[in-house]
Amino acid sequence: MVSTSSSQDSVATKTLTAEELTKIDAYWRACNYLAVGMIYLRDNPLLKETLQKEHIKQRLLGHWGSSPALSFTYIHLNRLIKKYDLNSIFLAGPGHGAPGVLGPVYLEGTYSEVYPDKGEDESGMQKFFKQFSFPGYIGSHCTPETPGSIHEGGELGYSISHAFGAVYDNPSLIAACVVGDGEAETGPLATAWHSNKFLNPIRDGAVLPILNLNGYKIANPTILARISPEELENLFKGYGYTPYVVEGSDPETMHQKMAEVMEECILKIREYQQEARTKNKAFRPRWPMIILRTPKGWTGPQEVDGHKVEGFWRSHQVPMGGMHSNPEHVKLLEQWMKGYKPEELFDDNGALIPELKELAPVGIKRMSANPIANGGLLRKDLKLPDFTEYAVAMDKPGTVEVENTRVLGKFLRDVMRNNMTNFRVFGPDETASNRLQDIYEVTKKTWMADYLPEDEDGGQLSPDGRVMEMLSEHTLEGWLETYLLTGRHGFIHSYEAFVHVIDSMFNQHAKWLDICKKHVPWRAPVSSLNLMLSSLVWRQDHNGFSHQDPGFVDLVTNKSADVTRIYFPPDANCLLSVADHCLRSKDYINVIVSDKQNHLQYLTMDEAIKHCTKGIGIWEWASNDDCGKAADEPDVIMACCGDIPTMESLAATAILREEFPELKVRFINVVDLYRLQSEKEHPHGLSNKEFDILFTPDKPVIFNFHGYPWLIHKLAYRRTKQERIHVRGYKEQGNINTPLELAILNQIDRFNLVIDVIDRVEKLGSRAVYVRERMRNEIIDNLNYAHEQGMDKPEVVNWKWQFS
Amino acid sequence: MVSTSSSQDSVATKTLTAEELTKIDAYWRACNYLAVGMIYLRDNPLLKETLQKEHIKQRLLGHWGSSPALSFTYIHLNRLIKKYDLNSIFLAGPGHGAPGVLGPVYLEGTYSEVYPDKGEDESGMQKFFKQFSFPGYIGSHCTPETPGSIHEGGELGYSISHAFGAVYDNPSLIAACVVGDGEAETGPLATAWHSNKFLNPIRDGAVLPILNLNGYKIANPTILARISPEELENLFKGYGYTPYVVEGSDPETMHQKMAEVMEECILKIREYQQEARTKNKAFRPRWPMIILRTPKGWTGPQEVDGHKVEGFWRSHQVPMGGMHSNPEHVKLLEQWMKGYKPEELFDDNGALIPELKELAPVGIKRMSANPIANGGLLRKDLKLPDFTEYAVAMDKPGTVEVENTRVLGKFLRDVMRNNMTNFRVFGPDETASNRLQDIYEVTKKTWMADYLPEDEDGGQLSPDGRVMEMLSEHTLEGWLETYLLTGRHGFIHSYEAFVHVIDSMFNQHAKWLDICKKHVPWRAPVSSLNLMLSSLVWRQDHNGFSHQDPGFVDLVTNKSADVTRIYFPPDANCLLSVADHCLRSKDYINVIVSDKQNHLQYLTMDEAIKHCTKGIGIWEWASNDDCGKAADEPDVIMACCGDIPTMESLAATAILREEFPELKVRFINVVDLYRLQSEKEHPHGLSNKEFDILFTPDKPVIFNFHGYPWLIHKLAYRRTKQERIHVRGYKEQGNINTPLELAILNQIDRFNLVIDVIDRVEKLGSRAVYVRERMRNEIIDNLNYAHEQGMDKPEVVNWKWQFS
Ligand SMILES: Cc1ncc(C[n+]2csc(CCOP(=O)(O)OP(=O)(O)O)c2C)c(N)n1
Ligand SMILES: Cc1ncc(C[n+]2csc(CCOP(=O)(O)OP(=O)(O)O)c2C)c(N)n1
Ligand SMILES: [Mg+2]
Ligand SMILES: [Mg+2]
Repeated sequence: MVSTSSSQDSVATKTLTAEELTKIDAYWRACNYLAVGMIYLRDNPLLKETLQKEHIKQRLLGHWGSSPALSFTYIHLNRLIKKYDLNSIFLAGPGHGAPGVLGPVYLEGTYSEVYPDKGEDESGMQKFFKQFSFPGYIGSHCTPETPGSIHEGGELGYSISHAFGAVYDNPSLIAACVVGDGEAETGPLATAWHSNKFLNPIRDGAVLPILNLNGYKIANPTILARISPEELENLFKGYGYTPYVVEGSDPETMHQKMAEVMEECILKIREYQQEARTKNKAFRPRWPMIILRTPKGWTGPQEVDGHKVEGFWRSHQVPMGGMHSNPEHVKLLEQWMKGYKPEELFDDNGALIPELKELAPVGIKRMSANPIANGGLLRKDLKLPDFTEYAVAMDKPGTVEVENTRVLGKFLRDVMRNNMTNFRVFGPDETASNRLQDIYEVTKKTWMADYLPEDEDGGQLSPDGRVMEMLSEHTLEGWLETYLLTGRHGFIHSYEAFVHVIDSMFNQHAKWLDICKKHVPWRAPVSSLNLMLSSLVWRQDHNGFSHQDPGFVDLVTNKSADVTRIYFPPDANCLLSVADHCLRSKDYINVIVSDKQNHLQYLTMDEAIKHCTKGIGIWEWASNDDCGKAADEPDVIMACCGDIPTMESLAATAILREEFPELKVRFINVVDLYRLQSEKEHPHGLSNKEFDILFTPDKPVIFNFHGYPWLIHKLAYRRTKQERIHVRGYKEQGNINTPLELAILNQIDRFNLVIDVIDRVEKLGSRAVYVRERMRNEIIDNLNYAHEQGMDKPEVVNWKWQFS
Repeated sequence: MVSTSSSQDSVATKTLTAEELTKIDAYWRACNYLAVGMIYLRDNPLLKETLQKEHIKQRLLGHWGSSPALSFTYIHLNRLIKKYDLNSIFLAGPGHGAPGVLGPVYLEGTYSEVYPDKGEDESGMQKFFKQFSFPGYIGSHCTPETPGSIHEGGELGYSISHAFGAVYDNPSLIAACVVGDGEAETGPLATAWHSNKFLNPIRDGAVLPILNLNGYKIANPTILARISPEELENLFKGYGYTPYVVEGSDPETMHQKMAEVMEECILKIREYQQEARTKNKAFRPRWPMIILRTPKGWTGPQEVDGHKVEGFWRSHQVPMGGMHSNPEHVKLLEQWMKGYKPEELFDDNGALIPELKELAPVGIKRMSANPIANGGLLRKDLKLPDFTEYAVAMDKPGTVEVENTRVLGKFLRDVMRNNMTNFRVFGPDETASNRLQDIYEVTKKTWMADYLPEDEDGGQLSPDGRVMEMLSEHTLEGWLETYLLTGRHGFIHSYEAFVHVIDSMFNQHAKWLDICKKHVPWRAPVSSLNLMLSSLVWRQDHNGFSHQDPGFVDLVTNKSADVTRIYFPPDANCLLSVADHCLRSKDYINVIVSDKQNHLQYLTMDEAIKHCTKGIGIWEWASNDDCGKAADEPDVIMACCGDIPTMESLAATAILREEFPELKVRFINVVDLYRLQSEKEHPHGLSNKEFDILFTPDKPVIFNFHGYPWLIHKLAYRRTKQERIHVRGYKEQGNINTPLELAILNQIDRFNLVIDVIDRVEKLGSRAVYVRERMRNEIIDNLNYAHEQGMDKPEVVNWKWQFS
């Protein structure tokens, strides 16, 4: 562990000259002054008047504890950006310390450029203070409104994966990432350190992690602050880093140390990069990281009301309250703020004095103005191959079988081939399992850890690989989110059941996009996050109950209609059409649900394009309610959504048409789930008129759905006589089963669907009793066969559509 | 790093005698034989006949790769259980390697005791083989059906937290926990290693982690297997362990090494425990852990069809397929199985020979029969104080304000006091934030890392603490799950928005309970998992959009009605009543949604008990539709669920009663959310009759809900004329707001509710236009005030119910 932590600093030559030191400290004081101002003041920003409670916000919000170390780090990085002309961005893991980020962003002028009413003058500063965490204005985290932010840091745990996602394929970028020592206790953060095994120093930029060991979380010490220095050192060496410790509290000493250490780290990074790049040999350096051990709430009040505050968890939020009832506290606040000597920092108009102003980089070198952190500005459309060329050929619907995702894999392979610097595919050790392995023909899996000879035989590993596989859904999702936010493109896939691991990350990203779209006009649109769920519930019959959960899409429908899209392509050609559409889109989270096993194919490419463009449609070849010149009046609508339910609905339709030739069946397939919702609730929603024409206003609908049945009711809730829509779906019944058995247990199978029709079409009713009985017998027979043979009957496995 | 990895073993005295070695290896061969048998065979279990394809299952399922190292570890632990009379259980992180666990469980007789048809004879073995991962039978993970399992290992990542949860307050227990090197890449696992900072060697048992560095996951190498030995050693030292390496592939050498190392580890554990216990001084030893570096698919086929299999990822699942088409493979399989020499292991009837049988512990010393792993057997009811003694006193409803969870904290404090060995409270650094800090009066927060003098001032830390705080929702949830499964009680709380972090863990635990309840009669009921969500969406107005998400309960309603319960107590007395009920219950996941801020109180304790017992009820004092002797006919039903929506509904009702004294309002509050569902779908559901009597069959219902509004429609879907139920709830509108502003943005506020009533009660309609206009003015006024003052108007903040 490289340490400069002895308080007797033995380094003879100081990194900073006396003048530099004075200036950087002054700059930091300005940051801290602003941070306190944001938390407390609504008026009198320069403290020109004696501080009165009227100048203070009624409701005090914000997190002081994190803030000083954040701005400390930020401005030390500024120095090196200027000195070495670095290309850098800044991520604040403890994003609740936004005052520590907003301060420097304001001081370097970006804030006022983006929000001209918060100018670099007294009235601008007043507004800047007042708006902070104030109703109707900006949040207290590094929200999308924060220039330069690509990481909100509200829900803790994703800073490191976000930092790595930004630097992949950005060879000149250094992402400085402050990690809270509390944040470091979260699972996602604890494994994200291993991202360094996926970073290629030739092709990628670098992350400089700064663990802010301020010792505390909300009301507790942190684990990493309370283990021995050896353990701490071992841990980060174990994670593959070279830890540098910067420890102390005296500002002058700490500025010198930080300046020295950060410079050494930056130089190390450049040295490693240069070595790899000149030799064109990718290796895995033990990248530097900084352990910044500083008091929480550094430079804040030492004690308040007899309790230790600085260097303790009591400084986490607002270190002193009761400002409107306790005049003592008002005085203390004034002393505290004046201790930063604002009069030496800001001129009479409230602008930072020029000698300090010049410490910050200018233009797009400012971390707050780096276009990489507003990636939509840099984004280039993907060069997409013509997806129709991957079409599965077909004579008759429902007769050919193909692994749907395998076909997609070929398309993705060529998407990759055309976009070898700004497109990546992410999966938790499941790319081959989910049948996307054809991508390996053009690129391998990124691997910067050790190699063994046997890897040659199908290992598909390479330092240059563009497929990202780590057994951490969290890390992958984190990488992808910022890969997109910095202007690139990507595709992630997961087993359907385990995508719940990243539910909360999905929520947060959806919220980020929603805010950007509606409230942050200066953020340019970014590529959509394309998430494919495969290894679906209906083909987890062999893995059992724990692998069966189609509920992620329920969660998705809780988020804003402006940023969410859900697709259930029934076959490979539809999957291609949907994938092409998603890869072109911006600012959405597109969820594609598609299984990896062999499935029947239904639509030619031409039909698929039409079907997917409509998002919902009648399959004429499966229906028999086209009455020629007479009005088409179906007796029942067989609707379906999802590859496997579609097959079962078709098989049921086949039985119905066989058994009841006089029954008029209309067959409707849904690809775009949101078509079901009202146009008032989702831009993809059908109008009620359109819905009624498709589904009739009153005929029974037997809707076979991939997921939990209630979701269909939720979406179709406002439709005419929606209670006639009878939905089947997964209802938590399953264990080790054959595919048909699992379908039967949840009643999405052909036989139960026929029974549903008989029970709901009045004109059949008891006149269909023999068929109904036969269906029940079929169910029993098939279950018995499954339990005896361990498989479904050949006629089920090999079932084909016969009618067209 | 303690290493015995040199293949030239220099240890002079071997741990195992020649005879012991022969026997343990034979026992292991029996395990491996069984594992292969489970995966492949449906008949001919002892290979008495020449193996034919007819003996082989049609569909080959299961994971061979993990299995040999699991049984290897299991049986070495058996040796020490016998030698030292240990009290042990076994957790298989890679639970997909169930064959490696089921084998030893069967060999030690437990399997046949629990499932007598799978006896210890040829026909029993045949059934045991056939049932594995076979439709209608048992799963291929360590599912609840597996005797001795408390960790399924389907969704990867929770083995270590599960192991620790089991040993807390179980001082004699040693939980051996095999961690997959792939699993180790997940976030939850990566941080769970820090659980050792919460383990007190006096009071708690010990976990012996065994990292199975078999090098591979599904189709990739693992990170930990491909970093340098120094990094690996550092990592585990950094996590606070003393790593012992056992590395190799030659069975004899490996048995010696494992015997030696495991014995040393067990002795170290006992030594540390003894030291702490005799001196009565809790300290944090650098606990031992084993790095077991063995080939994946150890002892399986070296190569299949020219590809390396043993020691490579190709051995992950079924190393050889095509058995029904490739006679060569059938031969290979026979050779492979015969290589274990079954004839030396099993007698003619198929029973393990007595010389081997005696290697296993007997009775409840067997890890598969340890009652701790069937914790319901050991569970004792909590000694609960009388919750009514914590009642908030009240004269008039809606006039007193109290922090609801603060009151709960007092109750929990005394629950804790009465149950200081089998009850713990878990929270991610939020116990005080969520206002449960009174618990600290009787116990502190567990802390086994370093202390500082300042901790004295409110740190509330102690090695004896029974409040578990770590900033990892995953780890806490994992600890709690097995704390419960091993027969104890607990309570966990989280910020509502961030509980999504553990969505997937909730799913898995719900599935576990559901299976236990319905399919595993020998598992005794365990205490419910009580999960309180606080810091709710409606009071995250200051933290902004990222902290607003009430959707966890949506997810909960996807899981089985037999194991899920959801409560929205409107005030402190109801919260007490609900909490008492939950703490007594078994086999559920109880979700309690209750805010921590000051809220109006509505019910006396007596009323609260009745209300919570009914789960839903009319609040007579708020209603004015009681028509004395005439039939009660309301014009509108004001329904509500959740503390904050309840207050807004009441405030709206107050306005209605003021403005329209002739309007008959019935006020209904819902505590038990599932009351809304049909009795056919949830045991708590009201019958349609009951529902119609409460809600009338046709009057408009204005339902103010805490969460996303659709959930109410989902639950009330089958109710009479449910389209008259007009639901308000959170709809993803929010940022930094005042409480009322946030309510207004989502239209759950009093003013919008009044408008809703005007718009829906025909007899009002345009005759109420002036009130409607005034409401709209109020909305505008209040928003303006909030944006100017940063708070709500005093009349809103101090609003009280005036009518009774
Ligand atoms: C996943 C998650 N759990 C809980 C919280 C609540 N929370 C907000 S700040 C905080 C403590 C953070 O401590 P640390 O990371 O050390 O940051 P510091 O304030 O010390 O800089 C917690 C627990 C959260 N934001 N996210
Ligand atoms: C959270 C999660 N993601 C993905 C999977 C899919 N999966 C099943 S087994 C496996 C590999 C496990 O490797 P390891 O832990 O090393 O176990 P081994 O089989 O080598 O013993 C994966 C990725 C899963 N079960 N859980
Ligand atoms: Mg901290
Ligand atoms: Mg492995």
